[in-house]
Amino acid sequence: MGKLLTVGTVAFDAIETPFGKTDKILGGSATFVGLAASQFGIRTGIVSIVGDDMPQEYLQLLNDRNIDTSGVEIVQGGKTFFWSGRYHNDMNSRDTLVTELNTLADFNPVVPEAFRDAPVLMLGNLHPLTQSSVLDQMAVKPKLVILDTMNFWMNSALNDLLEVIKRIDVITINDEEARQLSGEYSLVNAAKKIHDMGPQYIVIKKGEHGALLFNNGNMFFAPALPLAEVFDPTGAGDTFAGGFAGYIAKTEDISFENMKNAVIYGSNLASFCVERFGTERMQVLTTEEVEARLKAFKQLTQFEIELS
Amino acid sequence: MGKLLTVGTVAFDAIETPFGKTDKILGGSATFVGLAASQFGIRTGIVSIVGDDMPQEYLQLLNDRNIDTSGVEIVQGGKTFFWSGRYHNDMNSRDTLVTELNTLADFNPVVPEAFRDAPVLMLGNLHPLTQSSVLDQMAVKPKLVILDTMNFWMNSALNDLLEVIKRIDVITINDEEARQLSGEYSLVNAAKKIHDMGPQYIVIKKGEHGALLFNNGNMFFAPALPLAEVFDPTGAGDTFAGGFAGYIAKTEDISFENMKNAVIYGSNLASFCVERFGTERMQVLTTEEVEARLKAFKQLTQFEIELS
Repeated sequence: MGKLLTVGTVAFDAIETPFGKTDKILGGSATFVGLAASQFGIRTGIVSIVGDDMPQEYLQLLNDRNIDTSGVEIVQGGKTFFWSGRYHNDMNSRDTLVTELNTLADFNPVVPEAFRDAPVLMLGNLHPLTQSSVLDQMAVKPKLVILDTMNFWMNSALNDLLEVIKRIDVITINDEEARQLSGEYSLVNAAKKIHDMGPQYIVIKKGEHGALLFNNGNMFFAPALPLAEVFDPTGAGDTFAGGFAGYIAKTEDISFENMKNAVIYGSNLASFCVERFGTERMQVLTTEEVEARLKAFKQLTQFEIELS
Repeated sequence: MGKLLTVGTVAFDAIETPFGKTDKILGGSATFVGLAASQFGIRTGIVSIVGDDMPQEYLQLLNDRNIDTSGVEIVQGGKTFFWSGRYHNDMNSRDTLVTELNTLADFNPVVPEAFRDAPVLMLGNLHPLTQSSVLDQMAVKPKLVILDTMNFWMNSALNDLLEVIKRIDVITINDEEARQLSGEYSLVNAAKKIHDMGPQYIVIKKGEHGALLFNNGNMFFAPALPLAEVFDPTGAGDTFAGGFAGYIAKTEDISFENMKNAVIYGSNLASFCVERFGTERMQVLTTEEVEARLKAFKQLTQFEIELS
């Protein structure tokens, strides 16, 4: 059975979209990564931190999907990381209303013994030093290390970020962040420059406009599935990353051809994530639904021109 | 030999991009459509109007590519339509500096006898009444009528636009315009509403984010080829449309499967158009280059996941 380790947040989100609003519900990057990866019948370990306000049933629903939460530290008397945001009508932009770091402010990740040999490691969007610390704890060098980051760390911890970027294989980053990190407007040129910083593979996420995968001269594009309705985009990026990482963990094939499939699966799973609030859709998603939508992705992208 | 008729502008453009600026050079929607379509070894007839300031060599370079300009009225003492614009650094937005309608203000299109039986008709972005007039002159109902339009006509001649839209098969329109025309934000829903206005096929152009083709429940996506450098976007949309129309005119196959190929060819040709100022690149483009780039499109989009 494939094994994936991820470090990231297990959190509370309160979300407002044009379709409605939620109270504090289960969220966090590691949560979405784990739920997406669970589609591949692998074992995922989460390293994170929560307060004792995190309901046992939330951790249990992860455990029920073969997600190991023994690396999730529960701080007695502490409060769980909380994010609240409001999406605009076009769903492409949002305002953060509240960010409470709470226990996350003193997060000192400890990788459980059983996951120190995980062949695939997904370093979720956290302080680069936290990401480095997890990487340091691996007993066996992973076959593939994937790192997600954001502009916040470029602005506040660039040197630490550049250090950890040197040590990883795949970076996932959105288009604006790729431009900021590289100083290049063209995503082709941005990918080249980021490649020179260390990662062999660069995944540039463009939200509703899909995702690009770069590896030296090779380039692949996975569209986002055009949807009649996007209900809540929260977690779509983490779900994409979790689908990518989970598929690689299942197949243990890090060829460019197989990574194409991984980004298609990432895009596939993300298209489900946005159909309901938070993790609601991912909690009930079945393999049959994923396979059926794969057919939609094929119809959306495959064509039959014979090359002369 | 396939036959295509198009109505649109043959014009002068003066362009400023971060890479430099041009004097008045050859431009216009019909020019770009004709040059793109010429890649398919078909005969394209242009219906347009110019002043006697249009150099004979410009018309000759079209004729040399099997583009019939007998439908281009030359007004003695008149001046040719002139557009001047300046692109911003990101190449995604531009300011129009000058628009001189000149002879176009009194354009009364006359379709040459030899093209009244053209099986494919491309109605370029002009007043909807001009588009209707061309459609009225066809002696034989074309197999496929493609219409391009823009927000300007939605704002100034909506009823005329809705009338001509009823009569056509394919509409090409950009994403913002599709939203404006339909009142729907989601492009899936926008396509449904526009479908109800008449056209069986809706092509939504998203610039650097590619193009979507809709037909009832079917959906296909052609990405734009990610480029290290976009030199001048002028004419890319018309080149896309010309590639689409030209490929259909060559194959005379209006199945959805074949239209997928047509949007890929459109995207392929548009990716060349932006490499130089105005029509410069399209003037020297070879079949071999187009075929080679088709291979790049395949690598960019094709994947090999077996469906279970």
